[in-house]
Amino acid sequence: MTTTLYPAHATVVEVGMRDGLQSEPDVVPLANKLALARSLINAGIRHFEISSFVSPRAVPQLADAAELISALADERQGLELSALVPNSRGAIRAAEAGVDTMVVFVSASESHNQKNVNRSVADSLAGFREVCRIAGEHGTPVAGAIATAFGCPFQGEVPVARVVDIARGFRDLGMTVLTLGDTTGMATPLLVRERVTALREAVPEMPISLHFHNTRGIAMANVLAGLALGVDRFESAIGGLGGCPFAPGATGNAATEDMVYLLAECGVDTGIDLERLIQASRLAGRTVGHELPAQVSKAGPRLTRHAMDAVCTAAG
Amino acid sequence: MTTTLYPAHATVVEVGMRDGLQSEPDVVPLANKLALARSLINAGIRHFEISSFVSPRAVPQLADAAELISALADERQGLELSALVPNSRGAIRAAEAGVDTMVVFVSASESHNQKNVNRSVADSLAGFREVCRIAGEHGTPVAGAIATAFGCPFQGEVPVARVVDIARGFRDLGMTVLTLGDTTGMATPLLVRERVTALREAVPEMPISLHFHNTRGIAMANVLAGLALGVDRFESAIGGLGGCPFAPGATGNAATEDMVYLLAECGVDTGIDLERLIQASRLAGRTVGHELPAQVSKAGPRLTRHAMDAVCTAAG
Repeated sequence: MTTTLYPAHATVVEVGMRDGLQSEPDVVPLANKLALARSLINAGIRHFEISSFVSPRAVPQLADAAELISALADERQGLELSALVPNSRGAIRAAEAGVDTMVVFVSASESHNQKNVNRSVADSLAGFREVCRIAGEHGTPVAGAIATAFGCPFQGEVPVARVVDIARGFRDLGMTVLTLGDTTGMATPLLVRERVTALREAVPEMPISLHFHNTRGIAMANVLAGLALGVDRFESAIGGLGGCPFAPGATGNAATEDMVYLLAECGVDTGIDLERLIQASRLAGRTVGHELPAQVSKAGPRLTRHAMDAVCTAAG
Repeated sequence: MTTTLYPAHATVVEVGMRDGLQSEPDVVPLANKLALARSLINAGIRHFEISSFVSPRAVPQLADAAELISALADERQGLELSALVPNSRGAIRAAEAGVDTMVVFVSASESHNQKNVNRSVADSLAGFREVCRIAGEHGTPVAGAIATAFGCPFQGEVPVARVVDIARGFRDLGMTVLTLGDTTGMATPLLVRERVTALREAVPEMPISLHFHNTRGIAMANVLAGLALGVDRFESAIGGLGGCPFAPGATGNAATEDMVYLLAECGVDTGIDLERLIQASRLAGRTVGHELPAQVSKAGPRLTRHAMDAVCTAAG
């Protein structure tokens, strides 16, 4: 079955190593992170948000960012390793570590930004100028991420004009990619359409990446809405690593295997092998020591066959 | 924000009382079923697959079908109570109980039908003639459901032509609604498009209802794909009641609250109050005594506000 409904190819950015492991109470040892990264590479993952150059005191889970990147030196061919950079100090460390892309982020919501990084949105944006200067000296591209781009757990709605203004600021600083983060799972298909359409008009030179959370169960519907608009870059976390800080028991990041499954079934090539990705997800679960919310890892790929004597309850 | 992308209204058929409770190991007492039904009615649910007139020995969980319908007599105004009817004996009992609609079902997959009801697809279809005759005598409409309409856990792919043939058989017997059941979570947006398009051409007089399972995490993407085609009738189970017989730990039925949330956010009116629906879901969880997979019940509606001193981890 062929279709022109969706893009032929899409890039999947694996953020579990950063966004997922950062949310775990225990620090995952470097050797285990490496094993997980290699399992993901083996599945065909080529784009990683691999860590964060934040204060090791503030986020001990990611204190080994430079060591992790260094340890992957032999596998760098064809990989894009990006890392979060909160400020100029982080940018210097990230440049020294040799990241391929620096990622800066700011919340579209003033209250969320204050809560998250303890400064105003304007101060965050001002600080990015120095980050971009340092990155530029090293020839390293900078990607800009907008958190709470579809709504804020404190203030509620986030106007699209606000998101567009920040994107223009990113563009003016020379950033190359724009990520819309659905930090607490407030995105909807109509908001995806509204925001992607507005941003394409305002900053057509910036490719858009979408990062959904499954907090309200509709992350995959939002991915499909993005695909229908021709978006071809999505962020997700293996197994759905990373919870939701506001809703105990609710899921956080969209799960990479569920998303790759959806993409493949929509005829969108990602270069990723689902069976191997499921193996990586199982390793991720063992790495953090608890069950992960992804579904495809539990059920198997679509054409998984069962014996006729399998347990079976009535029709549905 | 207005849109003509999706239908203005949609009908939600709650199947948790049948498809969900049937999967529970313990029999839920009639009084508890009644309380759950009333909580769902209070939330605005008007269409129920309320029970099944199968053998009480085979499915003791639903042995009280007639009593349950009788106990809801005072609340019948404006409700549609449908029930599964496997054979003419069930049809007689269903007619006596006064169901609004009889539902017959057959698997599109020969192996699944054999496993599920121990007869061939042809024998199932032949048996429906008598069911339709009995229903006709009582002026009761019959809806036809096709299980494994998007794939079979035993045989794999199910040809669209097979689904179309069964639908034509249903039409020829005078059935009024056609439900496509994604029994083990094998539906995809492209298969939804293919099958809905083919069925509209083959049996344009039959409205199509879609019943997805979230076994592989993409039920809501499939709902969105259905909406984009103009489908306006969907089946789901409160809380996501009912597991998946083939994948321990995987989810089964699409959760009503997650689906109603998606529909509402897509501008599709269902007449259902999400806050009250979440209350009904919590009652469903207490009724069966375990956690249910629905997400919106854990996270709350989209604009749920949190205090600034709520626990908050870093941006995503």
